[in-house]
Amino acid sequence: MTTAHGVVQTPAFMPVGTRGAVKGMTPRDLREVGAEIILGNTYHLWLRPGERLIANLGGLHRFIGWDGPILTDSGGFQAFSLGEKRTITEDGIRFRSHLDGSEQLLTPEGAADIQARLGPDIAMVLDECLAQPATAAAVRASTERSARWARRCRDRFLQLDETGTVPSSVTVTNPGQAQFGIIQGGTVEELRTLSVERTLAIGFEAYAIGGLSVGEPADTMYSIVGHTVPQLPVDRPRYLMGVGTPLDIVEAVSRGVDLFDCVMPTRNARNGQLFTSEGRLTIKNARHAADEGPLDPACSCYTCRTHSRAYLRHLFVSGEIGAAVLNTIHNLRFYLDTMARVRQAIVFGTLGTLRQSLQAMFSRPLSNS
Amino acid sequence: MTTAHGVVQTPAFMPVGTRGAVKGMTPRDLREVGAEIILGNTYHLWLRPGERLIANLGGLHRFIGWDGPILTDSGGFQAFSLGEKRTITEDGIRFRSHLDGSEQLLTPEGAADIQARLGPDIAMVLDECLAQPATAAAVRASTERSARWARRCRDRFLQLDETGTVPSSVTVTNPGQAQFGIIQGGTVEELRTLSVERTLAIGFEAYAIGGLSVGEPADTMYSIVGHTVPQLPVDRPRYLMGVGTPLDIVEAVSRGVDLFDCVMPTRNARNGQLFTSEGRLTIKNARHAADEGPLDPACSCYTCRTHSRAYLRHLFVSGEIGAAVLNTIHNLRFYLDTMARVRQAIVFGTLGTLRQSLQAMFSRPLSNS
Repeated sequence: MTTAHGVVQTPAFMPVGTRGAVKGMTPRDLREVGAEIILGNTYHLWLRPGERLIANLGGLHRFIGWDGPILTDSGGFQAFSLGEKRTITEDGIRFRSHLDGSEQLLTPEGAADIQARLGPDIAMVLDECLAQPATAAAVRASTERSARWARRCRDRFLQLDETGTVPSSVTVTNPGQAQFGIIQGGTVEELRTLSVERTLAIGFEAYAIGGLSVGEPADTMYSIVGHTVPQLPVDRPRYLMGVGTPLDIVEAVSRGVDLFDCVMPTRNARNGQLFTSEGRLTIKNARHAADEGPLDPACSCYTCRTHSRAYLRHLFVSGEIGAAVLNTIHNLRFYLDTMARVRQAIVFGTLGTLRQSLQAMFSRPLSNS
Repeated sequence: MTTAHGVVQTPAFMPVGTRGAVKGMTPRDLREVGAEIILGNTYHLWLRPGERLIANLGGLHRFIGWDGPILTDSGGFQAFSLGEKRTITEDGIRFRSHLDGSEQLLTPEGAADIQARLGPDIAMVLDECLAQPATAAAVRASTERSARWARRCRDRFLQLDETGTVPSSVTVTNPGQAQFGIIQGGTVEELRTLSVERTLAIGFEAYAIGGLSVGEPADTMYSIVGHTVPQLPVDRPRYLMGVGTPLDIVEAVSRGVDLFDCVMPTRNARNGQLFTSEGRLTIKNARHAADEGPLDPACSCYTCRTHSRAYLRHLFVSGEIGAAVLNTIHNLRFYLDTMARVRQAIVFGTLGTLRQSLQAMFSRPLSNS
């Protein structure tokens, strides 16, 4: 996948840098673990430090010190999940900031403007995140609204793209920005198909599948992915938003998905939950207290090259900052190494074998780790 | 200064790695900022994960992944300041662990044994830390007791050194370990002289000045240092424990001190207080919100090379882990660069000029930063 800030090998995993930083990682740490693209959260950066400030400082890449590709979400998901007293109208999402209670309105045009100022290489359209469970009628209404919002978002994006300064208050910090549409439709196949039709009719640089990994069974998710992907253009990357476990990723890749993001490797790292080639590992467990081996003998990350499980357990139970840093380095490397293995398996036609091996690796109960 | 794990250029500053980690730093971060020797806290490592576990894993260097020189304190200071229900007898310090309330006894022999197991390159004797203010009589009694404890600590150290296994339960993980005596005597010059006599009579690889920087005025500290240092052997490093600000350090160096440790650069970094060549800087201040310049234009650390004040302020006010990491990298580099400038100034005979420049730099009021 080619972006304004370089090429990304796909299938790719994007570490999540919610507030302009992948928690505990510096840009060079990200490079070293093998990250090629990272994700930023529009909602968080919009409310603090503000997209105008970031634009004045030259855009998000320069602001955070990362010169590789960046994707930002639209801010909608967090406005739904973090915003207080939220109400949704055809206009957009009205809510109160979780930081200072200030009243905010996120419209499709606003989402495009904010992302124009932030300047990621890939911007996402604003879509409606439907609370689950929802009736079929509610899912349909929401899918239709998301399509109308996508149209407005695209129109604004194209306006900005054309002139760079319409409206004149919007500074476009990354003229090479692409915009992805998002397929909604919950777990209803015909609504997914409807959403694909509406979204393709608008036309975007590429397409994402949203509204999954929100509590539905894994098989349902795989099934909806399997239903949706074949309807998307083969020459454009397909992005499955917010997914997932290593197994979810390989299942989705085998159904044709190219891009992933998830807080799991970074959040779990901070909670002492590690991914290894031997399965999951809970570093707090007493069995690691005197273990001089690395987290993962098959891993070549800085953490595994330098430190024992005994030391990492000590840092974790002591509440040291270094525990978060070292665990995050490892978990991200595990995810990014897994993506490298996935890409290799595609070349060699061995994705099925890799899927089986990941299944065996991560079906062991956590209590034994 | 030559140690079992390499040579240290003096005057040197030792970053403090309380629980086996300099907070927020990996060993390679420490190398990159220019650290040549670090300090570990015996009290903390003894109570968790335990010095026996560390010995079983090959000693402190291997446990924490740092192959350069390490100094550990005796544990006495923390037993006094963190231990609960502490009582001091001729035997040692009895207290309850701040972690689990368990009853503990730290004796001079125990301090030597624990440090033999930990295996730092430099071990410190157990001394009595006197609560301030204290009567002259109390200071004298304490100084005398510290001298007796130093004798016992040295005897045990020599016993262990001779055979490596006396008593057989003590694993000596670093046969090249040195032991430093500590000069006490509060702010009373004749007691300092008495302590020097008693401590030199025992004989150690080198000597430290303890019991300062505990709330006395800076001038009093400088004066006691100026009184004590000339009585110590010129061919051995002199270590001023727990000191201090950059200005304190250059004042002490000009009085003949070679070694320093202090939590100030690391703790202040986590609190958003930065040291720069333009004086102190409070990163939280609104004036940095849109500042695209580095923390310190004269600094070449990773943080200053990569990030703006605006970004560092954003990370700090957002409570990101990265704020602690990046600020610590900078503050340690400032301290270690300052030590390099001190060493150069000694060679060129310009220490007076450097002192004046540090005075000007750090006498500006913090409220202007």
